[in-house]
Amino acid sequence: MSSLITALGPGREFDIIRELIARWGELASGIGDDAAVLAIPAGERLVVSADSSVEHAHFRRGWLTPREIGWRATAAALSDLAAMAAAPLGVLPSLSVPGSWLPDLPALADGIGDAVRAAGTCIVGGDMTAARDLSIAITVLGHAPAPLRRDGARAGDQLYVTGRLGGPSAAVRAWERGQTPDPESLARFAHPVPRLREARWLARHGARAAIDISDGLLGDAAHLAAASGAHVVLRLDELPTVGGAGPLDAARSGEEYELIVAAPALDTAAFEREFNLPLTAIGVVEQGAPALHATLHGERVALEGGFSHFS
Amino acid sequence: MSSLITALGPGREFDIIRELIARWGELASGIGDDAAVLAIPAGERLVVSADSSVEHAHFRRGWLTPREIGWRATAAALSDLAAMAAAPLGVLPSLSVPGSWLPDLPALADGIGDAVRAAGTCIVGGDMTAARDLSIAITVLGHAPAPLRRDGARAGDQLYVTGRLGGPSAAVRAWERGQTPDPESLARFAHPVPRLREARWLARHGARAAIDISDGLLGDAAHLAAASGAHVVLRLDELPTVGGAGPLDAARSGEEYELIVAAPALDTAAFEREFNLPLTAIGVVEQGAPALHATLHGERVALEGGFSHFS
Repeated sequence: MSSLITALGPGREFDIIRELIARWGELASGIGDDAAVLAIPAGERLVVSADSSVEHAHFRRGWLTPREIGWRATAAALSDLAAMAAAPLGVLPSLSVPGSWLPDLPALADGIGDAVRAAGTCIVGGDMTAARDLSIAITVLGHAPAPLRRDGARAGDQLYVTGRLGGPSAAVRAWERGQTPDPESLARFAHPVPRLREARWLARHGARAAIDISDGLLGDAAHLAAASGAHVVLRLDELPTVGGAGPLDAARSGEEYELIVAAPALDTAAFEREFNLPLTAIGVVEQGAPALHATLHGERVALEGGFSHFS
Repeated sequence: MSSLITALGPGREFDIIRELIARWGELASGIGDDAAVLAIPAGERLVVSADSSVEHAHFRRGWLTPREIGWRATAAALSDLAAMAAAPLGVLPSLSVPGSWLPDLPALADGIGDAVRAAGTCIVGGDMTAARDLSIAITVLGHAPAPLRRDGARAGDQLYVTGRLGGPSAAVRAWERGQTPDPESLARFAHPVPRLREARWLARHGARAAIDISDGLLGDAAHLAAASGAHVVLRLDELPTVGGAGPLDAARSGEEYELIVAAPALDTAAFEREFNLPLTAIGVVEQGAPALHATLHGERVALEGGFSHFS
């Protein structure tokens, strides 16, 4: 948190950073050196990812409250730890803040704090600077004894998805038409939940590949199939959806932050009891050349876009 | 590297990210999952920091080449690892890129790669998105058996500074007057070198507190004095300077990325032989209340600004 915010004038940057750190309280109690110092549990690996949310590119100011924007950016970044079945170790928010956003900065910081607290982790560093667009770049650190990767799916595995899909794309579509999204879709867009505990349960129960849904189920299942060299067939009829979304819309909806996992067989009822969240078998990994296929109403669906990884 | 660059259109973001990864070659060979997986040497601590460079706030396009901008942003972030005497483990660049910068993105990436290669480390992840200002948010990861902090200075210690100061502020002053900076000042601004190996040498030889100079020698020495609860007196006459800078200008010049260390006594000649870089004793830690004082030509200098940490 030592960067100079030239545009705010001398001293002002420290005042703002101090305000934020005070606001975060216990969540940010270790901040203050050039870098954070952390310990990784013996025998475990460090897992790290960086993820940015930028005004205009990822969200518009009128769609969400500042607190929701802070939550969503942080939850999206933490979702990358969930995709690896890692336990969170710390979060570093790097904020680029236009002058017009300064009055909303406390609420934005509260949203970041909410997501950090909900994940049971803390803020270990970060950075702040002035810019014309609000940009929230979040680095997340985690640890895992055996991180789940994308490349572990094998013929015979089932593919499972957590939660219900389609909410974020329905919400964006409504806003773009000048309408208000239905409450369930809005909640899924404004308040995605990184599936951190769920992912570790899945890893303990036999999952051997995972990815989170940021580019849409079809896009991310294709990434997983490509990385694993696997022939994946999805049954879109079985996809649990939100707010009346159709299965194809739900399968293309991005920024869901649910998980796709490949595993020999999972006890979905036990998962649902534990987390009060659906875990649904939606496909299989078959013998065959690396590819992604999908069926709907018993027919093969033509898939376009997002599959250049196979070309 | 999985974020959606909405403004660039479907598929385009993957093309650009693939181009960058191809350009980085061996430096980025591990990228491709939701998060990077790294090992910390047994018994060592993880050291992590995030640092952003934003167009207009930190640099202007006409001042530096895109390759220099990439180098400088990365070197500045790595300097936080040097301040902790940590060995680098990996770098995650998060780039926000306006359309007008896309043609310069390969050169910018080369500059990032140059700095990563010079530090003997690699690119383990990152993110890219569209924005109106170029923003380069760099997260750096390192490890150290006993990271150097700001709070270890004790009465009786000497204060030392690496290198020669004043170049960056002289360069910015020249540009702001419409002039061309002298070559030495320009080089110090465009091509700062994170003192990574130097810092580990200093830690091995007895340094017990360190900070890098991002806010200027006076500002950062004040941070160190405040964190250590130490009474520090600097002798500005002894400050090695660049390009004819006066000692007060050099002591206020920010974004130097040299190190200040506190140590009982260091063999400056041995350091200079090893690194071909000055290491200069410029002050002492005395018994007394936490404060920073400075003398010039035998007189006490009035210090204003940057010292609110004591208030």
